[in-house]
Amino acid sequence: MGEKNGQGRLKLFALNSNRKLADKIARELNVELCAASVKHFSDGEIQISINESVRGADVFIIQSVSDPVNENFMELMIMIDALRRSSAGTINVVLPYYGYARADRKARAREPITAKLIANFIQLAGADRVITMDLHAGQLQGFFNIPVDHLLAIFVQARYFIEKGITNDVVIVAPDHNGVKAARNLATLLKAPIAIVDKRDAKRAAANEKMTVIGDVADRRCIVFDDLIDTGGKMADAAAALKAAGAREVYACATHPIFSNDAVAELQNSAYTEVVVTDTIEIPAEKQFAKLHVLSVSRTFAKAISLIYNNKSVDSLFNKNKL
Amino acid sequence: MGEKNGQGRLKLFALNSNRKLADKIARELNVELCAASVKHFSDGEIQISINESVRGADVFIIQSVSDPVNENFMELMIMIDALRRSSAGTINVVLPYYGYARADRKARAREPITAKLIANFIQLAGADRVITMDLHAGQLQGFFNIPVDHLLAIFVQARYFIEKGITNDVVIVAPDHNGVKAARNLATLLKAPIAIVDKRDAKRAAANEKMTVIGDVADRRCIVFDDLIDTGGKMADAAAALKAAGAREVYACATHPIFSNDAVAELQNSAYTEVVVTDTIEIPAEKQFAKLHVLSVSRTFAKAISLIYNNKSVDSLFNKNKL
Amino acid sequence: MGEKNGQGRLKLFALNSNRKLADKIARELNVELCAASVKHFSDGEIQISINESVRGADVFIIQSVSDPVNENFMELMIMIDALRRSSAGTINVVLPYYGYARADRKARAREPITAKLIANFIQLAGADRVITMDLHAGQLQGFFNIPVDHLLAIFVQARYFIEKGITNDVVIVAPDHNGVKAARNLATLLKAPIAIVDKRDAKRAAANEKMTVIGDVADRRCIVFDDLIDTGGKMADAAAALKAAGAREVYACATHPIFSNDAVAELQNSAYTEVVVTDTIEIPAEKQFAKLHVLSVSRTFAKAISLIYNNKSVDSLFNKNKL
Amino acid sequence: MGEKNGQGRLKLFALNSNRKLADKIARELNVELCAASVKHFSDGEIQISINESVRGADVFIIQSVSDPVNENFMELMIMIDALRRSSAGTINVVLPYYGYARADRKARAREPITAKLIANFIQLAGADRVITMDLHAGQLQGFFNIPVDHLLAIFVQARYFIEKGITNDVVIVAPDHNGVKAARNLATLLKAPIAIVDKRDAKRAAANEKMTVIGDVADRRCIVFDDLIDTGGKMADAAAALKAAGAREVYACATHPIFSNDAVAELQNSAYTEVVVTDTIEIPAEKQFAKLHVLSVSRTFAKAISLIYNNKSVDSLFNKNKL
Amino acid sequence: MGEKNGQGRLKLFALNSNRKLADKIARELNVELCAASVKHFSDGEIQISINESVRGADVFIIQSVSDPVNENFMELMIMIDALRRSSAGTINVVLPYYGYARADRKARAREPITAKLIANFIQLAGADRVITMDLHAGQLQGFFNIPVDHLLAIFVQARYFIEKGITNDVVIVAPDHNGVKAARNLATLLKAPIAIVDKRDAKRAAANEKMTVIGDVADRRCIVFDDLIDTGGKMADAAAALKAAGAREVYACATHPIFSNDAVAELQNSAYTEVVVTDTIEIPAEKQFAKLHVLSVSRTFAKAISLIYNNKSVDSLFNKNKL
Amino acid sequence: MGEKNGQGRLKLFALNSNRKLADKIARELNVELCAASVKHFSDGEIQISINESVRGADVFIIQSVSDPVNENFMELMIMIDALRRSSAGTINVVLPYYGYARADRKARAREPITAKLIANFIQLAGADRVITMDLHAGQLQGFFNIPVDHLLAIFVQARYFIEKGITNDVVIVAPDHNGVKAARNLATLLKAPIAIVDKRDAKRAAANEKMTVIGDVADRRCIVFDDLIDTGGKMADAAAALKAAGAREVYACATHPIFSNDAVAELQNSAYTEVVVTDTIEIPAEKQFAKLHVLSVSRTFAKAISLIYNNKSVDSLFNKNKL
Repeated sequence: MGEKNGQGRLKLFALNSNRKLADKIARELNVELCAASVKHFSDGEIQISINESVRGADVFIIQSVSDPVNENFMELMIMIDALRRSSAGTINVVLPYYGYARADRKARAREPITAKLIANFIQLAGADRVITMDLHAGQLQGFFNIPVDHLLAIFVQARYFIEKGITNDVVIVAPDHNGVKAARNLATLLKAPIAIVDKRDAKRAAANEKMTVIGDVADRRCIVFDDLIDTGGKMADAAAALKAAGAREVYACATHPIFSNDAVAELQNSAYTEVVVTDTIEIPAEKQFAKLHVLSVSRTFAKAISLIYNNKSVDSLFNKNKL
Repeated sequence: MGEKNGQGRLKLFALNSNRKLADKIARELNVELCAASVKHFSDGEIQISINESVRGADVFIIQSVSDPVNENFMELMIMIDALRRSSAGTINVVLPYYGYARADRKARAREPITAKLIANFIQLAGADRVITMDLHAGQLQGFFNIPVDHLLAIFVQARYFIEKGITNDVVIVAPDHNGVKAARNLATLLKAPIAIVDKRDAKRAAANEKMTVIGDVADRRCIVFDDLIDTGGKMADAAAALKAAGAREVYACATHPIFSNDAVAELQNSAYTEVVVTDTIEIPAEKQFAKLHVLSVSRTFAKAISLIYNNKSVDSLFNKNKL
Repeated sequence: MGEKNGQGRLKLFALNSNRKLADKIARELNVELCAASVKHFSDGEIQISINESVRGADVFIIQSVSDPVNENFMELMIMIDALRRSSAGTINVVLPYYGYARADRKARAREPITAKLIANFIQLAGADRVITMDLHAGQLQGFFNIPVDHLLAIFVQARYFIEKGITNDVVIVAPDHNGVKAARNLATLLKAPIAIVDKRDAKRAAANEKMTVIGDVADRRCIVFDDLIDTGGKMADAAAALKAAGAREVYACATHPIFSNDAVAELQNSAYTEVVVTDTIEIPAEKQFAKLHVLSVSRTFAKAISLIYNNKSVDSLFNKNKL
Repeated sequence: MGEKNGQGRLKLFALNSNRKLADKIARELNVELCAASVKHFSDGEIQISINESVRGADVFIIQSVSDPVNENFMELMIMIDALRRSSAGTINVVLPYYGYARADRKARAREPITAKLIANFIQLAGADRVITMDLHAGQLQGFFNIPVDHLLAIFVQARYFIEKGITNDVVIVAPDHNGVKAARNLATLLKAPIAIVDKRDAKRAAANEKMTVIGDVADRRCIVFDDLIDTGGKMADAAAALKAAGAREVYACATHPIFSNDAVAELQNSAYTEVVVTDTIEIPAEKQFAKLHVLSVSRTFAKAISLIYNNKSVDSLFNKNKL
Repeated sequence: MGEKNGQGRLKLFALNSNRKLADKIARELNVELCAASVKHFSDGEIQISINESVRGADVFIIQSVSDPVNENFMELMIMIDALRRSSAGTINVVLPYYGYARADRKARAREPITAKLIANFIQLAGADRVITMDLHAGQLQGFFNIPVDHLLAIFVQARYFIEKGITNDVVIVAPDHNGVKAARNLATLLKAPIAIVDKRDAKRAAANEKMTVIGDVADRRCIVFDDLIDTGGKMADAAAALKAAGAREVYACATHPIFSNDAVAELQNSAYTEVVVTDTIEIPAEKQFAKLHVLSVSRTFAKAISLIYNNKSVDSLFNKNKL
Repeated sequence: MGEKNGQGRLKLFALNSNRKLADKIARELNVELCAASVKHFSDGEIQISINESVRGADVFIIQSVSDPVNENFMELMIMIDALRRSSAGTINVVLPYYGYARADRKARAREPITAKLIANFIQLAGADRVITMDLHAGQLQGFFNIPVDHLLAIFVQARYFIEKGITNDVVIVAPDHNGVKAARNLATLLKAPIAIVDKRDAKRAAANEKMTVIGDVADRRCIVFDDLIDTGGKMADAAAALKAAGAREVYACATHPIFSNDAVAELQNSAYTEVVVTDTIEIPAEKQFAKLHVLSVSRTFAKAISLIYNNKSVDSLFNKNKL
């Protein structure tokens, strides 16, 4: 019968949510994106055609589950179904942004845990592995039984501030109570102290009067650090509170730029000098603004894909000494 | 500990796709729709709050997987997750329209079978039963391992034409090769012969010249019968072909009014005297048109829910003698 | 430890239902059938012994689920169990004929969907892939979550009639309402029109009087086309109806020759000039008859197995230009 | 909505393998067997129709997986599928005889473990519980994750010999090495010693010369005790060996009368005074013989069904004091 | 057949880890603990005997997965297996303390996520529901697909400090970065501000020099608040840091008293005035110490069990107005 | 992208239960044991760190589930979880001793089947294969759906007695009713007859008076043969009974030396000349005794691992001619 072939070729696909990042990753990997078309019919249904054989191949699909969240998620699910039925060797799902990550526990009676539903569906559809970045909570790795490679943007982010020279008189600020651990991580890389914006009430209107900064920020440069920026309200409030507490200059830094609602106006009109995010979510032209600075995480993803494809440990990506 | 209570109460919920039908079903059942709110956040994520206890209850959720298909489907999935985690006794999914039903087999290489993916997700999310109507192919029942109660609109449809007196000189016409069996079923109820529109090529532009009517329709009244009307193109073509073949009058009859793209114009401008559909999919005001007539299937669903809740056979719903 | 070996060898096994086809496939592939013995004990139980190592191998098992259906099916299940426990690398089930395929939906209350049960069992037993031909309904592919390679006999069938010169004045006839789509497919390959035998009542006794031919067959040569011939009754009725409608000559063409009950007499005594089937089901000597002509699909299966084993697309098998 | 009804009714069904036992069990329970028809089509496929509603009911299905083993097993599987899809409340499988029980481990390389396959299929098809009797090995209970109620015929068997007065000078004999524990159990109830027939070679031809009786049987009455009698060869050999060792009189006692091959002749022509079996497997008229005595286990099954249906412990059935 | 009985009785079992709490819960519920014996054999294996029928009953098993963690966990697993095989109606697992909860994500390469393994095993063994308290991370609810009722000790804890009059000049202190959100929750109930102990390095030896208090604690009464106390090191460090920062008085408050290693000495010799924990983990006599105060959560568990058993919402347990 | 590497390397790990055997196996295979640390924290939880990449590797983990049974079992489970999440290619579990194997069926009402629970957990955790030796019952293979390679110590044991010259006048003795088949197997290899110790009552105190030897042992050398020695009581009783029956010399031979409770004293003080076991369970220094002789099965395991890794049949290990 001769030799078998085609086993374990690398095949990289991009769906519709973040073509720009996918193109960069492909360039870093020096491969072509594979040909697939994803159509949305006039009745709202999605149709996917894969235009080359994937039998036995190691397939990586890049898709952020960002707005339109449900469309993007279903694109991904249908793509996995098509790949599984087409006898792909392994199906590796690259999720630069994991939508619904904040719906990760029942905070009130009779709430869903949609982040788990998403995880269950990804597995049921047929994924063999998930590669993602800066999950809202690290525990989401445990929502899966398949391997999850959890990448971090923090080295790219820290390097940016180091190269920009923002290392003296700096305080890393958690904009709420959940983010203190992350703030501590960035603070350690930048050898800086931390502070916390203490909001007593989650409702925003009421919160402004009840907002305190814990920790010393007077006359300091502050970097407010979070995993994502959604409506920008929390970030804007933090800037105001820090300014009120005497901060000299404030920067916002986050991985995932959701920028929903009035986020662009909120941030542009805020006290921030600069708003630093990454390209895990594609920012359309109408959401670009003067204070925005975008770091690319394409190299991190490309390296991870290459290491995984070659059965090497991705551990090397987390080497703090590389800063 | 006293007596247990609350076990097996009936709880009827409606999500966003088809509130009108849900209200009618509730009225037929003489129950109130339960309180739940389904919000779409500014970032595109769905949040569901169920405002009353469902522990131990027999819950029925009404949702059509119609346009916006993916939003409506994810609403349903998240609702099921919330109900399961809230200890609902049984979760019964009422799908007046089953979206993605036409993606039911691999017609070309490397296609997904999205109708099966949908079925897998409904089961994985936690549904105990599906109640649906006029599936594009009856085989979709076999996509599930849980019970499926498959209701039929044909008795409502046949009764309409009988009451309207359209029973003489009538021919039931299948608008394509897949629909002949369904046409035969309606023809039997109306004691009429059948005909078929024979399109040799699936591509529409090319098809017009190659369209033949098989069967005798000259000087007859024709009812073109299908499970759904999507863009209306196939239906409009059928009317034209029938008129060209000498039909006296043509009616369109279908269960699911998807009405995507230019369907409204296509149908209003067509040779049809009347376009008869049901309310499995809610038709917004801007898609109403003069020739449209909508039959309600609310009573059929209400009876089915009542029989199922009371552990009685739904078989009685399929009694042809009731016409 | 040295090099690993034995991974991914091709191993072809045949069970008892259709040794002749298996032998032909093996010859086409230029491999030996592997040694396994399948015994039926005096108490009715099946015992299987596999006489060579299958560790890590790509195993293909050929078995039609034809009469005796349950024996043949259980042979297959037990074989898969043995292979899985023997550490076969992949288990590929080749089903030239998929028994129980017609039990694919609940047509009446409280019916099983045995075609799905079969699919569930094949997957649970441990199959990694199914390769089959001309399923009664294409939707059966969706009964599986594993890949299904669905082969078609239609090219072999069309070529036969083309080579025989039966292309002029030909009409392709669907013997019932469900088969119109298939008839259209053959008609397109042969550039012929279609017709339908319209039986108003499924009960045969009553049906004869109520049988009409829709479409023009007078003085034409008709090829009645179906996926299978079971008792032959439907086929014989179609021939009679076509002759009554003035057909000049009638041929029967189907993929799966079940030939149960009095099929042989029905067909031999019918108006057919020839009955053309394939060898997906082995026809024992006592079921051979003068009008029978058997086409072999061994080459189609052999090519598919070779392409799959070599991780190449089977899409090339469906090239219409090859006719 | 009023009161729910129909929940938890008892519904008793019998398939084709052992109607006589089923009738007896129904009489003991004072219920009617429910109406279902099980047809074998001319093409070998099985069709099942259930003629009354089972929604919400506690269904018990009686079927022995005896010769024709695969037909009977598939009848059972298809019945479970139909019941599950018909919304039965619980599905309780009553297997008086569990076929394939001896295929319970890999004794040689690349053997299946068919008894586990059977268990997996029963569970996958949708059974909630198995009720069976005298499994070939008690470990088969562990092949299931669902509850198994394992009934014993030994009290019925012991009582028979006690009532017949065969209690003095009795030795209970294991016909092979695996059956010693069971022999000890009967011996304890009858206050008798045990002996073993020691065959050095499993192949029968060779075995006769190498057969020894271990234990003292000279001038005693022997009861050879086993779980089943298949071809009767082992039993006949045991009788011969015991006679050769001086036994005065020999009885055979077993639960499951498979009686395959020449069993009837073997046993009738053997040295046995009487062959005592139960009715777990129906013995057709042509397999009745003079020395045969059949005990009924219908009461044991009826009691178990009643206890289970009423959520009472079946433990009371194993009370040794009842003898 | 008469009426069914025994369905849905409440059966409360306690395993070996925390009999005292189980006794209190039983007293609150006014039921007897059911009889089961859990033996550890001389070879280390666990044997469980359940001494009364559980068929159809709603069973609640109380077991903390505390030291000896693996013994206690396996006791629970084996008990669930026994209950499932004994046809318990529902199996409700009450875990006052969820062991391995901190192993909830891969913090380093090639780490297990043992908290998810535990969740998978609980579900696979057959649990229908988990009732637990103060999970180390709320996301652990999402490790399950079955319902999780997540109870809180915070109302009991807040009430204690209110009744003790410790409400003026109080600061709630998070002993590390992960606990800030929890500290904010208690602070809101006590209308107090928060502070954080900021350790820059997780390694303890190195940490002392690098420990800062963020927030104003000078001359205040501090309550250091955490979900659990393990070796007591983190708690002791926090007390020292707070004292160094000028705190007037410090209290420790946590839900789960693991007290491993030298915890007792660490805490007794620390600057704490009092160490307030709950009885989710049983504290043996040798681990009692003068500064220890134990609050009971038995009433919270009893109420939850009663509400769940009666199909009522447990939401009422989270009413802040009850303080 | 260059060539993939690292796929299918052999990686051998040992957990804590039996390092000595693991070291021997590694030496036989001429590989290094891979680096992993397994720590038990002060709170009783287990932490595992794997210190080298396992991506794509064929991993074999050696662990006996011996005393402390639950600790050792959980070590194994957590290790499998870590390996699966670290993308190991295949996970092969080597269980020289399978703990809980005797809990393999419900012998009394409401007992667990812990041996099945263990099997379910091993599979759920992510094992691809189990390699074990001398299961208490061969049926345990059927508790798994994954392949089980069941090795035998009997050739090593038989060779020992042959080499020692203990082949004349030898009788192989089963110490209870369940072990007769195993005794027959050894007897066949040694060309010896068999005998059975017949205990009428399982309770030991009562049993002594009621113990009989069936078979002729007077003036013979006896080898009492069993799969394991737990408390030694059964073995000691057998020796006494055999001596009383006139045996000249008695040897004990078993595979698994559990040696719980007073086993060492029981055996040392017994009538045995020698107690021959294997090293499937590590015997600590304090459990060594003068009469003990330990055979190593390391070569058998090493050969099996090598054959499996190289996709060759392990059948060759069972060749009786090798004696």
